[in-house]
Amino acid sequence: MKIRENIEFGTTIALWAQCPDRFLSQGYKGSSTFEDKIKLISKNKDFKGVDLYGDWDVNRDNVDEVKEILEKYNLKTYIVTADVNSLPEFGRGSIASPIKESRELGYKKVMEAIDLAEILNSDMVNLWFGQDGYDYPFQIDYIWGWQQVINTISDAADYAAEKNIKIALEYKPREPRTHIFTASAAKMLFAAERAGKDNVGILIDTGHGYTAGENISESVAICQLAGDKLFYVHVNDNYKVWDDDMMVGSIHPFEMIEFMYWLEKVNYGGPIVLDMFPFREDAYDASKESVDFIKRVRQLLSEIDEEEIKALLKEQNGTKSIRMLRKYFLK
Amino acid sequence: MKIRENIEFGTTIALWAQCPDRFLSQGYKGSSTFEDKIKLISKNKDFKGVDLYGDWDVNRDNVDEVKEILEKYNLKTYIVTADVNSLPEFGRGSIASPIKESRELGYKKVMEAIDLAEILNSDMVNLWFGQDGYDYPFQIDYIWGWQQVINTISDAADYAAEKNIKIALEYKPREPRTHIFTASAAKMLFAAERAGKDNVGILIDTGHGYTAGENISESVAICQLAGDKLFYVHVNDNYKVWDDDMMVGSIHPFEMIEFMYWLEKVNYGGPIVLDMFPFREDAYDASKESVDFIKRVRQLLSEIDEEEIKALLKEQNGTKSIRMLRKYFLK
Amino acid sequence: MKIRENIEFGTTIALWAQCPDRFLSQGYKGSSTFEDKIKLISKNKDFKGVDLYGDWDVNRDNVDEVKEILEKYNLKTYIVTADVNSLPEFGRGSIASPIKESRELGYKKVMEAIDLAEILNSDMVNLWFGQDGYDYPFQIDYIWGWQQVINTISDAADYAAEKNIKIALEYKPREPRTHIFTASAAKMLFAAERAGKDNVGILIDTGHGYTAGENISESVAICQLAGDKLFYVHVNDNYKVWDDDMMVGSIHPFEMIEFMYWLEKVNYGGPIVLDMFPFREDAYDASKESVDFIKRVRQLLSEIDEEEIKALLKEQNGTKSIRMLRKYFLK
Amino acid sequence: MKIRENIEFGTTIALWAQCPDRFLSQGYKGSSTFEDKIKLISKNKDFKGVDLYGDWDVNRDNVDEVKEILEKYNLKTYIVTADVNSLPEFGRGSIASPIKESRELGYKKVMEAIDLAEILNSDMVNLWFGQDGYDYPFQIDYIWGWQQVINTISDAADYAAEKNIKIALEYKPREPRTHIFTASAAKMLFAAERAGKDNVGILIDTGHGYTAGENISESVAICQLAGDKLFYVHVNDNYKVWDDDMMVGSIHPFEMIEFMYWLEKVNYGGPIVLDMFPFREDAYDASKESVDFIKRVRQLLSEIDEEEIKALLKEQNGTKSIRMLRKYFLK
Repeated sequence: MKIRENIEFGTTIALWAQCPDRFLSQGYKGSSTFEDKIKLISKNKDFKGVDLYGDWDVNRDNVDEVKEILEKYNLKTYIVTADVNSLPEFGRGSIASPIKESRELGYKKVMEAIDLAEILNSDMVNLWFGQDGYDYPFQIDYIWGWQQVINTISDAADYAAEKNIKIALEYKPREPRTHIFTASAAKMLFAAERAGKDNVGILIDTGHGYTAGENISESVAICQLAGDKLFYVHVNDNYKVWDDDMMVGSIHPFEMIEFMYWLEKVNYGGPIVLDMFPFREDAYDASKESVDFIKRVRQLLSEIDEEEIKALLKEQNGTKSIRMLRKYFLK
Repeated sequence: MKIRENIEFGTTIALWAQCPDRFLSQGYKGSSTFEDKIKLISKNKDFKGVDLYGDWDVNRDNVDEVKEILEKYNLKTYIVTADVNSLPEFGRGSIASPIKESRELGYKKVMEAIDLAEILNSDMVNLWFGQDGYDYPFQIDYIWGWQQVINTISDAADYAAEKNIKIALEYKPREPRTHIFTASAAKMLFAAERAGKDNVGILIDTGHGYTAGENISESVAICQLAGDKLFYVHVNDNYKVWDDDMMVGSIHPFEMIEFMYWLEKVNYGGPIVLDMFPFREDAYDASKESVDFIKRVRQLLSEIDEEEIKALLKEQNGTKSIRMLRKYFLK
Repeated sequence: MKIRENIEFGTTIALWAQCPDRFLSQGYKGSSTFEDKIKLISKNKDFKGVDLYGDWDVNRDNVDEVKEILEKYNLKTYIVTADVNSLPEFGRGSIASPIKESRELGYKKVMEAIDLAEILNSDMVNLWFGQDGYDYPFQIDYIWGWQQVINTISDAADYAAEKNIKIALEYKPREPRTHIFTASAAKMLFAAERAGKDNVGILIDTGHGYTAGENISESVAICQLAGDKLFYVHVNDNYKVWDDDMMVGSIHPFEMIEFMYWLEKVNYGGPIVLDMFPFREDAYDASKESVDFIKRVRQLLSEIDEEEIKALLKEQNGTKSIRMLRKYFLK
Repeated sequence: MKIRENIEFGTTIALWAQCPDRFLSQGYKGSSTFEDKIKLISKNKDFKGVDLYGDWDVNRDNVDEVKEILEKYNLKTYIVTADVNSLPEFGRGSIASPIKESRELGYKKVMEAIDLAEILNSDMVNLWFGQDGYDYPFQIDYIWGWQQVINTISDAADYAAEKNIKIALEYKPREPRTHIFTASAAKMLFAAERAGKDNVGILIDTGHGYTAGENISESVAICQLAGDKLFYVHVNDNYKVWDDDMMVGSIHPFEMIEFMYWLEKVNYGGPIVLDMFPFREDAYDASKESVDFIKRVRQLLSEIDEEEIKALLKEQNGTKSIRMLRKYFLK
């Protein structure tokens, strides 16, 4: 089948950092400067851009320097993620925190991300409300919490629209909260549709989709049905119970192949961005392996007659589907 | 707090039947006639009505007899569920089957359920597309499948509207398919909103919600946010990995207490209907225990000052929430 | 690497039957005679033998006829599975039922399977205590239940030893009970070691291993560590939450490749037996696809230098492991 | 029923610390000195002792000071946990690391914990090999890994025996690795039995048991069957997919009630030790709530006639079991 040429790859910066967890809070790896990381990323010529995370990577004070470094190494800013998760003030939530100051700070951080994106010539901002949710029964008024999320999206969309920036909403069922409101593709679309703005769409992180119990290709299809609402993708793999942020296709290769097929089918035009957390692997090697994996999959896809796939999808015969996968991918 | 008096309880008929599985396909229990079952149900005076499942319980041929038996025992028909799951023709799907005849039969069964509801003086039909989904990668065109679901809901809604009947959409993530399209509350709302009809809402089966990874009270809230869209509830419990259809509150009592609180909060006005599958328990005893459990929970809820709960939900302090549960329910 | 030639494939008979579930208790397919099934199996020349399930396939009355049919089609009886799961008497358990008559019948069925195996010239009997477990808190005395299991294994081993028959113990975490005592490889070994008989070992069903949260290759290793205790394997795939009994490698191909490697590494000498339940697939096609999948995997394994794999396992570098899989299997 | 009086409660120190995760690696709370924490713990008179974690809480340099502080506040050291998880050297494993120096350091840390326990007059050391496992297919030689674990346990047991110290082995299926070797009660017993030492037993952390898919009461029973091998318990709750380390009984109260019953039934004589991680809750309040929860449960248990429970466990009637729970605990 014909697949889009000139696909671009990107990466989060966290992939190249210390990778802490609660047992090794100083991280599994040593620290390095932002420029060190960018330099290393730029060595893999498949990477054309990066995701920047608010505060971790970029803020109002360092944004000019960040911009300069990215230009020096010829990397774009694909997206800026608002930091509503990683400050102590957000421990009990950001825009749905019980604390007024935290809600205000969360709101401010959302708008700040839009400003930063504008400065960095990025046309996309990522909102992920990872701290907004709950843990215990009888802990929160779910209706109020959802309204906070919806209202914030709505305001962010308006502010971003003035700058021709789009909002990509990232969903995830759990971590850091045991329950995050915006837990799945359909719940995220539910919020987006209530916000009701044209410049709002969905970011599918394949690992978040897996832990949400989703078939990630079906999630692409649902975003398409909602009106071309797939705005961005993060790729990684896991064992489907937790966001392990592992190498792409390493555990569920066939589902990743199908995902790559569906990105073509809905004419996804954005970059394919790695969001891995290689606690115990070398960042350069692990990210290169994942890029090479995707390139290999896309190459093999390109060798299949698209009519053959279309016929499979029409016939709904599982045996033929698996035979196709064996024939073209385990050859 | 003030809780609705005159709450009504209902039950599916399958609860009182043989309870087969694939190892004991003849069922774990002996068979009995429809009237036997109704008679037994009527012995528990808390039951005011029943759910009827198409073909299993009611069809065009026996509907008058069914109606007569229900009147004899003074039980209402709360809902009629369209049989798009339990005929051999639906093995590979009903309205999203690859087989044209199955799609047509599925469509016909949906409309038939509306006719049966009208005859039985029921104002609600349940659509559960349990066979419509997929099992393997590359097995189906997800967009086509979803469109089939949405179009069928739309047509059913129009036909039902003529008879002043409402459509309650039941979701479930898996079983009998490994993947059912309409897998969660948010996905079901996604379909309902695309169908875009006023007489379409959601049926929350608490066990299906659990297996979909949902907090069932949050699902109530989301239906409310969608515009008073909670139309019906099925109650049962499970271990959250499979639809075990166990006794209400037996595994997750605190979450069931919270669910009962939220039904009050959104002014749910319908019956509370048991949908259990007591493979190894006596149907009468197990259903009575579940009704008594709910009655006990509602009694205890009524003894709490609602302002105390509202304050908890505002403060978002998990410790206080659990202390409240211990204080009022483990007393 | 050098892999064992002359590997034999087998199949359960249930794979070729009606495949019922609780929604379609008559099954997703039409019925056929035992000989019809055997004839169809024999058309795939890779199959050299079958698994027979007590009562479903073979009993004291039909055993001679069964033997004759198998000989006619040149198929061995690899194993006989005791029917302690599929009679109404076992609905609340077999050897750990609260009902004395059921316990006695269960015990009898275990011994009967050994007699049948002897008649059929099979040297292996499969014990799977799928109904022995519990569903609710405070439902059973776990110590008593486990002792029932252990004592039965012990007695069965003694009786089988007289006939030079081995006992392969099959584990599974759930279905038909929500909790089966013998739920995992390690729990099964726990029972086996308490029984303390040389002719007792483990049957790994890859799908049961997945639903038990196991890495199936690690389970092979544990059986090996226990003293060459891997007696038999059933292969299939699933989504790791339920025993979906799907085609081999269709969802987790890399884990199946690793499993095939470990079967070689521990010198597993038995047949590779398909235990699938193709509800919606043609039995012949689906089973052939799975056999072909395994043959392809083993062929590709044979082309790798074993020293390369050994070096990987020593270095513990995940990136290199995935690169190897991409290089040799996604080529 | 008669329940043990003079039960003692304990707590980990981590419960009172900053509670970091990978998004807030500085922690959700401010820091405090060891003495501050001990002082705060001592305010709840139900706490009679603490768990000390190697390096985090105690090491060769500060052990005398630690001892002094504990004496000052009249708290025992219940257990010392060897630090084989929280140093950068253990990022890729401790005693099963591919790096020789890490293996040696891991071994040393195990022995060091025994020395520290001796100094602190503790008779128990906890071994939890949380970094020893794997993440990817083909990443490790499982047999070698397990042998490392078994050999270390064996050596530790010998060294501890000289000092009359016991080894409590803590299991957990995942985190920080996606796969930890010693993943379940039965796997841990498998290791313990291969080590073959009298002074080796099991530590059940209820949350680890839940995430391992276990019924925690059955795990108590299995330890008992293995020969009185339940050495220690950690209590907390979670949603069964991740070690959320939440308040005791907050999500699964009935299972916690049953667990408390089984601790009595097997005459567990040790302390009940809280191992929670209250990211967003006040440590004092959350731990007090959990202690009060357990005390309430034990009080209610004491009011039931034990013969009634014994009869339930013999009859295996789920309905009666749930009725008992409703009657005595939801009263």
